[in-house]
Amino acid sequence: MIRNDAARETIAPTIGVFDSGFGGLTVLRSLIQHMPRARYAFIGDTARLPYGSKSRRTIARYAAQSAQFLVREQGAEFLVIACNTASALALDAIKEAVPGVPVLGVIEPGADAARAASRSGDVLVIATDATVQSHAYLTACRERGLRAIEKACPLLVPLVEEGWIDHPVTADVIDIYLNELRAEAAANDLRPDTLVLGCTHYPMLRSAFENAVRPGVTVIDSAESTARAAVKFFDKSPMRLVGGGPDETEVHCFATDSVEKFERLGSRFLGRPVGNVTLVDLGG
Amino acid sequence: MIRNDAARETIAPTIGVFDSGFGGLTVLRSLIQHMPRARYAFIGDTARLPYGSKSRRTIARYAAQSAQFLVREQGAEFLVIACNTASALALDAIKEAVPGVPVLGVIEPGADAARAASRSGDVLVIATDATVQSHAYLTACRERGLRAIEKACPLLVPLVEEGWIDHPVTADVIDIYLNELRAEAAANDLRPDTLVLGCTHYPMLRSAFENAVRPGVTVIDSAESTARAAVKFFDKSPMRLVGGGPDETEVHCFATDSVEKFERLGSRFLGRPVGNVTLVDLGG
Repeated sequence: MIRNDAARETIAPTIGVFDSGFGGLTVLRSLIQHMPRARYAFIGDTARLPYGSKSRRTIARYAAQSAQFLVREQGAEFLVIACNTASALALDAIKEAVPGVPVLGVIEPGADAARAASRSGDVLVIATDATVQSHAYLTACRERGLRAIEKACPLLVPLVEEGWIDHPVTADVIDIYLNELRAEAAANDLRPDTLVLGCTHYPMLRSAFENAVRPGVTVIDSAESTARAAVKFFDKSPMRLVGGGPDETEVHCFATDSVEKFERLGSRFLGRPVGNVTLVDLGG
Repeated sequence: MIRNDAARETIAPTIGVFDSGFGGLTVLRSLIQHMPRARYAFIGDTARLPYGSKSRRTIARYAAQSAQFLVREQGAEFLVIACNTASALALDAIKEAVPGVPVLGVIEPGADAARAASRSGDVLVIATDATVQSHAYLTACRERGLRAIEKACPLLVPLVEEGWIDHPVTADVIDIYLNELRAEAAANDLRPDTLVLGCTHYPMLRSAFENAVRPGVTVIDSAESTARAAVKFFDKSPMRLVGGGPDETEVHCFATDSVEKFERLGSRFLGRPVGNVTLVDLGG
């Protein structure tokens, strides 16, 4: 019995991580840094990306299918929705699809971190077009007493995927976007001291943004914030993440279609080899 | 009877135009310029774009559904596949899906135009990642006795969609891509005198490319080449495009999901208002 209890205590939980593509691997990377002692199952719904151009109903249906795959097929006991669009538009639908399983999105942790960091109460949020149109960050910031200005930065994802991380063109694009944001903030009489990176690709540009913002502005990496929120959940949970080091992390990646780009770019996002990506069919 | 024949002679054919998104509206724009006297039905499979990250099997299935919609629901008598990925990977599957209906892709007309323009026989092709990986232009050029070097330019589509058409960042990106292409051509002992714009978004950057290429290099706009190939088809066909002017063009656009971006950007691509875009459901 004692042996069994001890064994149970060291069994690491399975954490399911979902994204429409592979950008969410930056969230998985932060999760592994904070909680190396776990089994991770990551699914990228690459057959149907990008979710950003799709309707709420379609996104909810797709995201629910992936969540059910992680829970039913992979035994996930905790889900991280590492996709801003799905977190913004489909979090409730995902929770309904996997009753009893705790589900954490990326929006609330980012807004919490902005609340903790901002002294002026004024926040800038950059994200994809779809996330901005959902106003999910604006709403979450308002709920925390923050004023926020959001801006879609659609060139940043392709720049990251092109590998132009420390590239002068990327620095130019970041400057142009930040100048437009500052002008809009000034026109609205805001004094922002916090910048939220509201897209899972943007942590790859964290250094570039830290170099580009004015002194005294804090850059919030929502992948990092989400990982910290997950740690908090497990601190209060009976599921224990006992001891252990990076060697004990187990990662298995799945994709719903063409795994080539996932395998080619994924390791850079994850900061370690993604290994073989398994193709899965979630149906229509 | 005479009246009926006369009436039949002036009935314009319905031309179906298909793309995974709305970039193919540049092809529709060229078609209308060359053949204003027609009814056009355009479908963008926006629910499932981009095709570029999907497998050949999936692309073939999706493209066939759109082709069947254009023929069966819209009465299209001629199909233009205004999508490089579908033209490269699914043209045969589309032809099988709509037996008896002539189908024209965008790859062959672009390669024909390059053959007509090039004196050196050496050609540069720029396209999306997926089109380049298919090597469809390389193959089509080789079949015409041309040597070709292909390059994926994944930043150009988002730059066009951001509206940075005459923007210094876009000029920088074009210069970087062209310099890389020239270096690769020189390393392979090619003397290219022709540049094929092998993506339906790129005609929006035609002037920028014409400014960026070296003197004596011809820029081939594959939307324009495709429209000329369609005109040739109708010249030989019993379907007559009788007289008429731009006033008589009828255009109806359909999309499989979120029409907002389509309506917002489409008119710029089409060079005239796209009007109301009708949502259609093609199933899974």
